[in-house]
Amino acid sequence: MKDLPDDGFHVFDTTLRDGAQREGINLTVADKLTIARHLDDFGVGFIEGGWPGANPRDTEFFARARAEIDFKHAQLVAFGATRKAGVRAEDDAQVKALLDSGAPVITLVAKSHDRHVELALRTTLEENLAMVRETVAHLRSQGRRVFLDCEHFFDGYRANAAYAKQVVSAAHEAGAEVVILCDTNGGMLPGQIDAVVRTVLADTGARLGIHAQDDTGCAVANTLAAVDAGATHVQCTANGYGERVGNANLFPVVAALELKYGRRVLPEGALEEMTRISHAIAEVVNLTPSTHQPYVGVSAFAHKAGLHASAIKVDPDLYQHIDPERVGNTMRMLVSDMAGRASIELKGKELGIDLGGDRALVGRIVERVKERELAGYTYEAADASFELLLRQEVEGRPRRFFRVESWRAIVEDRPDGTHANEATVKLWAKGERIVATAEGNGPVNALDRALRVGLERIYPQLATMELVDYKVRILEGKHGTESTTRVLVSTADGQGEWSTVGVGENVIAASWQALDDAYAYGLLRAGVDPQE
Amino acid sequence: MKDLPDDGFHVFDTTLRDGAQREGINLTVADKLTIARHLDDFGVGFIEGGWPGANPRDTEFFARARAEIDFKHAQLVAFGATRKAGVRAEDDAQVKALLDSGAPVITLVAKSHDRHVELALRTTLEENLAMVRETVAHLRSQGRRVFLDCEHFFDGYRANAAYAKQVVSAAHEAGAEVVILCDTNGGMLPGQIDAVVRTVLADTGARLGIHAQDDTGCAVANTLAAVDAGATHVQCTANGYGERVGNANLFPVVAALELKYGRRVLPEGALEEMTRISHAIAEVVNLTPSTHQPYVGVSAFAHKAGLHASAIKVDPDLYQHIDPERVGNTMRMLVSDMAGRASIELKGKELGIDLGGDRALVGRIVERVKERELAGYTYEAADASFELLLRQEVEGRPRRFFRVESWRAIVEDRPDGTHANEATVKLWAKGERIVATAEGNGPVNALDRALRVGLERIYPQLATMELVDYKVRILEGKHGTESTTRVLVSTADGQGEWSTVGVGENVIAASWQALDDAYAYGLLRAGVDPQE
Repeated sequence: MKDLPDDGFHVFDTTLRDGAQREGINLTVADKLTIARHLDDFGVGFIEGGWPGANPRDTEFFARARAEIDFKHAQLVAFGATRKAGVRAEDDAQVKALLDSGAPVITLVAKSHDRHVELALRTTLEENLAMVRETVAHLRSQGRRVFLDCEHFFDGYRANAAYAKQVVSAAHEAGAEVVILCDTNGGMLPGQIDAVVRTVLADTGARLGIHAQDDTGCAVANTLAAVDAGATHVQCTANGYGERVGNANLFPVVAALELKYGRRVLPEGALEEMTRISHAIAEVVNLTPSTHQPYVGVSAFAHKAGLHASAIKVDPDLYQHIDPERVGNTMRMLVSDMAGRASIELKGKELGIDLGGDRALVGRIVERVKERELAGYTYEAADASFELLLRQEVEGRPRRFFRVESWRAIVEDRPDGTHANEATVKLWAKGERIVATAEGNGPVNALDRALRVGLERIYPQLATMELVDYKVRILEGKHGTESTTRVLVSTADGQGEWSTVGVGENVIAASWQALDDAYAYGLLRAGVDPQE
Repeated sequence: MKDLPDDGFHVFDTTLRDGAQREGINLTVADKLTIARHLDDFGVGFIEGGWPGANPRDTEFFARARAEIDFKHAQLVAFGATRKAGVRAEDDAQVKALLDSGAPVITLVAKSHDRHVELALRTTLEENLAMVRETVAHLRSQGRRVFLDCEHFFDGYRANAAYAKQVVSAAHEAGAEVVILCDTNGGMLPGQIDAVVRTVLADTGARLGIHAQDDTGCAVANTLAAVDAGATHVQCTANGYGERVGNANLFPVVAALELKYGRRVLPEGALEEMTRISHAIAEVVNLTPSTHQPYVGVSAFAHKAGLHASAIKVDPDLYQHIDPERVGNTMRMLVSDMAGRASIELKGKELGIDLGGDRALVGRIVERVKERELAGYTYEAADASFELLLRQEVEGRPRRFFRVESWRAIVEDRPDGTHANEATVKLWAKGERIVATAEGNGPVNALDRALRVGLERIYPQLATMELVDYKVRILEGKHGTESTTRVLVSTADGQGEWSTVGVGENVIAASWQALDDAYAYGLLRAGVDPQE
């Protein structure tokens, strides 16, 4: 039997197994390998890769991971169930698959709620204990480290505490290194966790872990409550992905342990990579990263209230519980009608524009922002439009690269069922009058193309620019007036992205404005000299 | 001085004030009134409407709310700061605005962290206490109920516990009914909350509330920890909206109190409305509802793992911590179609369409719905479109009142600065071919008018119909594919309203579909016989 290494605290990631059970996630083997690399970079101690044997894709994952990944920090873990009732562990095909995976660590899942043993497994309480004992012992005899997940532990403990503890003891005595108490249905609250964990620890002497689901919105807190009560192994997933609502989110859990508990649970310097890794994993699973995730969300350190901004000017710590840099994130000031002078000054600084402490200028900018926000503009999500506004106020006049004389868009649905979307723009650039027409998949797309067709010869820099996001919002008018349309556009040029806003009486007019700003900003950014 | 009512537990909602500080939310007064109605329907005890005086939009909100909303459950609350340093409460313009709002309850925010008093307010610790005492006393003398938010309480308590408690006592002794301990920077963990709340309760005798921010991912747990320690007033926001990461989410908080603590904190039957209200509020703020929110998310009771599915077939409780119906949600199986069939049959019943227990028919409808939802349709908010789909499957062919041969919309911005929006439709109705043109304030409005101009002679019933709501959403395509546009339209005929959905490659095409369905449904509803 291998020497068991001495490892004080386990950060156990199950993104690739439990996380993959989230609605909307569908991981290829290549995806899994990429995510495994990110997790290893982050420094988790264990990466549960999947259920070999049960899922053919997972069988392949383990084979390829062994061949292709040289793990720097993590040990690979294979997940599976205890042997079937009435079958010997060494004869069970699925147990064999766990061994064949080659993973040095195996997590077995076992029922610890008597009702589940009877209704779901349809066997006896005694046989279930034997299944636990024998499968653990068998895997240990083959030189593997074994962890045992007690499924439905807390519900099982409530129903039949004695039996639930027997399952823990059976696993522990057979050689399972850690026995994990799982809140599988996610119904627990933190106040309930403490007493259970302390009692089980005292009564069984096993090393305990915690696996929390987020159905009550308390998975992170439940995980920490278990740690407070003596658990030394936490199971989490990146970005909280998982079945139903999700699992305990790896990032706020390790951040709490490192930053609040002062415990080192990750390698040196890993925490500063957290924001990057969170976003990278979201990219692989093709889910928009949640903007409001603790620590790593784009909005996590974004300040809106003017009251907050004026305090932050004095000291950012007045409204931040930690320095965002510690988790690889940054502070952002949001400009909105809630902003005041302080927000404008800080935002100007953020954009590299020195407002020179000019109170009258800053006051004018605050007024213009409030005016425009009242008219429907929003600068929170349109930094580039805001910068153009700032520069215009600072320089006293708008920077213009082209002047539009007129535009027209036609959308048609013809009798033969075909669609046509065509736009024509007439404009002036560098003293020349240009007329351009283009087609597209919609009126806005057609206008965008016509504008570029018209201008690309004069401003070749436009060729690198591309519309990458587009949002529409209809704003209710006040009583008796027409509603207004607001459009937010994101444009990219291969080196970065910028956002602009447009407001108008209909979606075409609003889009036009947002595009106009987008290209003006893009050309400014490309270092072109403004001239009409 | 008014008699204070006896109210045991406060559910205090601050969606309209703190929630509005979330990045990306920009509420009009009309939006706020709509949300206030939803919150009142849900049965919260208090609705903090905003900061009158400081935000002109909020001043207007309070005026209109008083005139237009007849609250069934909630009391309206105005939020604002204690008087300025060195100014008398009765002379402070912003305090006066709080009184002028007419709100029966006022929440004052005060500094309780010595560092904030010195750096942010730039006054003395003594003056800050006087600001608290005098403003509370003044508002009480004017007959208002007063709550006092101790900003940065927990950080302040850690830095200078004696002073933090003095602030609590000052408010309490001056007549504040509840003193709320705020974790303003959101850095607290649940294990830390208990001791602080218990001590403050014991040492000041004040009635305490809790206001938690979600920066560590523990806002719900922190709120419950405070309740466990004796707080009887919880401040939350719908869907957890708020500054930075967000506030404690109203829904998992009240669900925990009602379903886990067995405490009645909402009116009878309110909890079953929770899912509907969560989504309705998300719709108003124009944010995609988080699919993975506890209790109310679309995925909250969606089961994916095969292991779970077979157990659930035996008993849903095996993998659900509560019956989803208790919060107005439903269970969904992501693998089998069993739940799909059940929902279709129930919906048919609801719409008065007898699906006759026809398994093949129901199966076909389930498939069509899945197909269409994959393409971007959503029937949750488009009952009328769903009913048309049902009837089409039941009757074997669509009901048509008119057949569109072609349509065209032109949007123009002319050199003289004027705009033109014109649409032409060519269609067949009751055997007649009609060509109609109309102008409007945008391409969709022009199309709508052209359609009506063309059809009103043949179907005079159209004269009573009016578009009353219109929402656009751009749906992200998966990697490498084009995005799709979805439009939801509400139409009214003086007797009721109905909603339809349209999906297309651009907003005009999508709107056209939604309008087509809207009028087809309207005519069906008016009892007109379908015929082309």
